[in-house]
Amino acid sequence: MPPPRTSDDELVVTWQCPDRPGIVHAVTGACVSAGGNLTELQQFSSTDTGRFFMRLQVRDMTSAQDLTAALRGIAPAFGATVHVDRLGRPVRTMILVSKAPHCLSHLLFNRSAGRLPIDVVSVMSNHPDLADLAAFHGVEFEHRKVDRSTKEEFENAILDKVSEKQVELVVLARYMQILSPHMCEELAGRCINIHHSFLPGFKGANPYRQAHERGVKLIGATAHFVTSDLDEGPIIEQNVQRVDHAQTVAQLTGIGQDTESTTLAEAVRLFCEHRTFVDGKRTVIFR
Amino acid sequence: MPPPRTSDDELVVTWQCPDRPGIVHAVTGACVSAGGNLTELQQFSSTDTGRFFMRLQVRDMTSAQDLTAALRGIAPAFGATVHVDRLGRPVRTMILVSKAPHCLSHLLFNRSAGRLPIDVVSVMSNHPDLADLAAFHGVEFEHRKVDRSTKEEFENAILDKVSEKQVELVVLARYMQILSPHMCEELAGRCINIHHSFLPGFKGANPYRQAHERGVKLIGATAHFVTSDLDEGPIIEQNVQRVDHAQTVAQLTGIGQDTESTTLAEAVRLFCEHRTFVDGKRTVIFR
Amino acid sequence: MPPPRTSDDELVVTWQCPDRPGIVHAVTGACVSAGGNLTELQQFSSTDTGRFFMRLQVRDMTSAQDLTAALRGIAPAFGATVHVDRLGRPVRTMILVSKAPHCLSHLLFNRSAGRLPIDVVSVMSNHPDLADLAAFHGVEFEHRKVDRSTKEEFENAILDKVSEKQVELVVLARYMQILSPHMCEELAGRCINIHHSFLPGFKGANPYRQAHERGVKLIGATAHFVTSDLDEGPIIEQNVQRVDHAQTVAQLTGIGQDTESTTLAEAVRLFCEHRTFVDGKRTVIFR
Amino acid sequence: MPPPRTSDDELVVTWQCPDRPGIVHAVTGACVSAGGNLTELQQFSSTDTGRFFMRLQVRDMTSAQDLTAALRGIAPAFGATVHVDRLGRPVRTMILVSKAPHCLSHLLFNRSAGRLPIDVVSVMSNHPDLADLAAFHGVEFEHRKVDRSTKEEFENAILDKVSEKQVELVVLARYMQILSPHMCEELAGRCINIHHSFLPGFKGANPYRQAHERGVKLIGATAHFVTSDLDEGPIIEQNVQRVDHAQTVAQLTGIGQDTESTTLAEAVRLFCEHRTFVDGKRTVIFR
Repeated sequence: MPPPRTSDDELVVTWQCPDRPGIVHAVTGACVSAGGNLTELQQFSSTDTGRFFMRLQVRDMTSAQDLTAALRGIAPAFGATVHVDRLGRPVRTMILVSKAPHCLSHLLFNRSAGRLPIDVVSVMSNHPDLADLAAFHGVEFEHRKVDRSTKEEFENAILDKVSEKQVELVVLARYMQILSPHMCEELAGRCINIHHSFLPGFKGANPYRQAHERGVKLIGATAHFVTSDLDEGPIIEQNVQRVDHAQTVAQLTGIGQDTESTTLAEAVRLFCEHRTFVDGKRTVIFR
Repeated sequence: MPPPRTSDDELVVTWQCPDRPGIVHAVTGACVSAGGNLTELQQFSSTDTGRFFMRLQVRDMTSAQDLTAALRGIAPAFGATVHVDRLGRPVRTMILVSKAPHCLSHLLFNRSAGRLPIDVVSVMSNHPDLADLAAFHGVEFEHRKVDRSTKEEFENAILDKVSEKQVELVVLARYMQILSPHMCEELAGRCINIHHSFLPGFKGANPYRQAHERGVKLIGATAHFVTSDLDEGPIIEQNVQRVDHAQTVAQLTGIGQDTESTTLAEAVRLFCEHRTFVDGKRTVIFR
Repeated sequence: MPPPRTSDDELVVTWQCPDRPGIVHAVTGACVSAGGNLTELQQFSSTDTGRFFMRLQVRDMTSAQDLTAALRGIAPAFGATVHVDRLGRPVRTMILVSKAPHCLSHLLFNRSAGRLPIDVVSVMSNHPDLADLAAFHGVEFEHRKVDRSTKEEFENAILDKVSEKQVELVVLARYMQILSPHMCEELAGRCINIHHSFLPGFKGANPYRQAHERGVKLIGATAHFVTSDLDEGPIIEQNVQRVDHAQTVAQLTGIGQDTESTTLAEAVRLFCEHRTFVDGKRTVIFR
Repeated sequence: MPPPRTSDDELVVTWQCPDRPGIVHAVTGACVSAGGNLTELQQFSSTDTGRFFMRLQVRDMTSAQDLTAALRGIAPAFGATVHVDRLGRPVRTMILVSKAPHCLSHLLFNRSAGRLPIDVVSVMSNHPDLADLAAFHGVEFEHRKVDRSTKEEFENAILDKVSEKQVELVVLARYMQILSPHMCEELAGRCINIHHSFLPGFKGANPYRQAHERGVKLIGATAHFVTSDLDEGPIIEQNVQRVDHAQTVAQLTGIGQDTESTTLAEAVRLFCEHRTFVDGKRTVIFR
C-alpha cells in the first residue's frame, strides 16, 4: 500500500454534475483565477447515467477559502456537488468489528505506518475479543453484547457516535451483523463493507466452503459500499488468489482472509483520497 | 504456454482407485520390476470422495508393454483404473466452433508452434466463417447449418466422426449450441468447454454486459468439463483480468476473449498431458 | 486486448510542454471555443523533468480543422508540441521479424480481429520463414538475407520504405538484428522492441537459460522504445509469469513467448491510441 | 496465507540423495512396513545436479520412532539425508530486525493468527524501535547498538542464542547489517533474507529509487537463502506489483514493503512446512 501524498498547501477537489460541454474549462478556470496550479486531473462521463465526475489536485493557492469560494461560485450553474479538502488529511473513521482480527489489524498497522490517511475515532464491536489489538494501536474500543433485543440500541449508539465525532467513514471490518435498512440509509455513501467472496459468486455465510465444494481455482474478496440491498452495493475493489484441489476449507479461509485484508484497506485508501464516486449501481474510481 | 516434454522412451501413467494404504508402494514396485525409473510422481487422496489419484512419469523401460502388463497385474486388487501413454503423444482432438475465431486461432497457433500436443482431426462448425483459418493451419473443416430440425443430425455426425477418427478429446471453442444430454453423456470426461465468465458468477448469454452493469473490477473465464448440468461441470482452469469503470461492453468483451483463449488452451494442455482427473463435482489437477 | 474505440467524429489530442500554471484551462478553452466536448482528459506533471503531458478526447466538433487551428493558436505561448488525430485511426505500421512467429502472429491476429488499430504496410525480415503467415493475413512481406556486408543496405531499404509509405510506427517483433545507431536515431520515438526478459534483469542472448540457472520464480518480458543504448530505452509495458524448479529451459521459453506476444501487442495498442509519451529515460502512459 | 495442517499423528518426511532407480519404491516400502499411510508425496530429480528430492506426509503410524527407524535403515544404501518431523510442529525461529516494522509485524500477526508454524524464541535488533511490537505479541526482544567495533560481538551473541535455544531458522526481516562470511557459513541453509527488489535487478541500497529512475512498470521482492555471496543465494519466493509513472519513490517504497512482507512470510511458511530444498544455486519448492 503506497503512503498518501500529504501537503499542507495542496488541495484535492471533487466535482460531480450532469454531463454537458464546458465543465473542465469552467472548473480549471476557477482554479486559475484562485491562483492555483493543477497537478492532477481525472474525469469521466458516464454514458449509463449521464453524470460527469472529476477529481483535481491543486497547489500554490493563496488560500483554500479562495478556491472553495471560486468553485462554489460556478457550481450552481452546472447543478454540481463540489468538495474541497486538504490533500492527505486523515479522514475521521469508525471501524465495526466482531471477532476476526485480520482486517482490523491490517487497517491499524497501515495507519500506524503512515500509509492510510485515517483518524480512527472509535472501534465498536459486538464482542470483546479485539480490545487488546485496539489498545496496542492506541485507539478507543467499545463493545456491547448484541442480540435481537439490543440490536437497535447498539445501532443507535453507533449513529450517536457517528454524529458526535463527525465520523466521515464507517468501515465494516468483518462485522458479523446485518445492518438495518435505517442504518444503511443513514450511512449511505460513507460505509464500506468487505465481502468474503468474489462477487457475483458465492453469497451467504460460508463462501469458502462453497468454493471448496464447487472446486474453483481462484477465490476472492470484494469491497463495496453498503446499501440496504445486501451484497449488492457498488463495488470499489476486488482481488483474487489462485487455489487448488488439495486445499482444505481452513486453508482457503486463511488465503481468503489475506485477500480480504488487503482489498478492504485498498478500498479505504481510495475513499480517503477522494478517489471513489457512486454512479448508480456502479462506482467510478480514479486511481 | 510451455511446450510439452516429449520423449519416445518416457511414459506417463495415470492411476485412480479407492484410497487405502500401500498404493504408492505397489505401483512404484510395478514400475521398478518393469525396469523403469520414476521422473515425476504426484498423488492426491480426496477426503471428499475417498478416491485416490496418481500420475507418474517413467523412463528407461525396456518396453511400454512390460510396464502396462506389470500395472494391469496389480490393478484389480486395488479396484484401479490405469492408463499408460507415451509422454507428449499428440491427442486426437476435435474442435467445435461457431463464428468467433479467437479460441480456435489460439489453439491452432499453439499446436503449430509445437506447444500443444494435439492432433486436430477435425474442426466442425454450424457456420462457415472459420474455414480459412482452419485451412491456413492445414486442418479439416466441416460445416453444416444447424437449426431445430437439423441439430440432432449434426450431433450424430459429430459422434460418428468421434467414433470413426477415434477422437479422444472434443473442445468447444466458443461453440454456440447447447449440447443435448445424450451428447454430454457420450462425451463425458473428454469434452472441455470455455465459459466466458468467472464461475460462479454471470451465467447466460452476455456475461460481459452483466459485468459492466454490475461494475465488477475483474472479469474472467472458466474452462470446465461438459456435463448435462449447464455451466456446472468440474472446473479445470480459471483466470481473471482487471477492468475499470471506463471500459465499454465491447472493450470488456475484447479483454475477456483473450482470457478465454489462454484459459481454454491451458485446460487442453493439462488434459493432453494427462494431468486432469474428475473427482465428483471437482477436478484434481497435477501441474 | 480491448478493441479500440473508433469514431469518425471523436478526436484525440496530445499536448506536451514545459510545466506552468494555466495549461489545462487554456487547452480546454481552445476545445470549447472550437465547439468540442471533452470525453476523456489525462495529464501529468513530471517533477523529474519539469515537463507537462496531456491527452484529451473531444467529440461533437464542427471540424477537426477548427480544433487543430484553435490549439495551434495557443501552442507557441506554451512552447508546446500538439497533435490531433481521429480516434481509432489505424496507424501505418512496419513490422520487422526474423524466424520466430509468435509475436507477429499475435499482432496480426489482433489486427484482423479489429482489436489493434494498425495498418500493417509491410513486414520485413532477414529470413523467409514467416512469409506464409503474412500472406494468410494479407500483408506485404519482404525478406533479404542480411550479413555483415548487406546489413547497411537492408537498413537503408527499411528507411526508404518508412519514408515512402509514411510509416508512423516500426515494431521489432523478435527481430534478431541489432539496429545501427543511425537507424535508432532515425526511428527515435516511433520504434518499439520486445525484450525477452523482465528488465532490469537478464540481458543478452538467452535470458531463459539464465533464468533457469538462477532459479527465479517469475519470468517476464519488457516492451520499450528503441534507443541506441541497447535494452535501456524507455519502458512502455512489462509482464511476468510464475515458473518453478521443474520447468526446463524449453518450457520457460514457451511461457516467455506468450508473455512477449501479449506485452508487445499491449505496447503497440498504447502507442497507437496516443497513450505513450517519452519523459527523459522514462515513459508516461495514460491507460 | 493458509493455516498449516497440524496433526499429532501425521508426520512429514524429507529425503534427498543422488538420483537412481528404485528410491520411491524403497522409501514408500519403509513407510508401509512401519504401518503408515501416505497422504502426500512430491519428488523431483534435478538434471542439473543429479540430486533427487522427496517430501512425504504419512499418517496412521503406530509411532514416529518406528517410521524414523525404518527410513534410517535404508538411507545409507542410497547415500540419503532423511528428516522426520511432526506435521505442523512450530519451528524454533529467531528474527533479526532493524527499524522497519512491516516484515516483523506481518510475521508475528500471522503467527498469532495460527497461520505460520513458528515458535519465535527471540527477536534481536541493532535498534530499539521495535521493542513494543515484540512485546505486544509476547515475544522476547533484545537490542544492542552495533557499530564497527561491536559487530563481531553482536554476531557472536546471535550465534550463542541460536545454539542455546536450538534455533532452527533465522529470518532477516529487513535487518540492515551485512552478515559476516562466518555467520553466513554457520547459518547456511537455515537463514532466509528478504531482498527489496525483484532479483536479478536492482541491487544495493535503494532499489525503489532505481526503479523510479528506470521507469519500470512492475516492482518486486525476493526471499532467498543467505549465502556469503550477497543477494545471490538460492531464491525461495518472488512477487511483483504493478506501478506507474505517477508514483513517487515514497509510494513505490510503500507498495514494495507490502510485497516484501507477504513474500517473506510465504518463504518462512514453505521452510517451516519442510517444502524447501537447496539444489546447487537453485531451490526445489514443493507447494
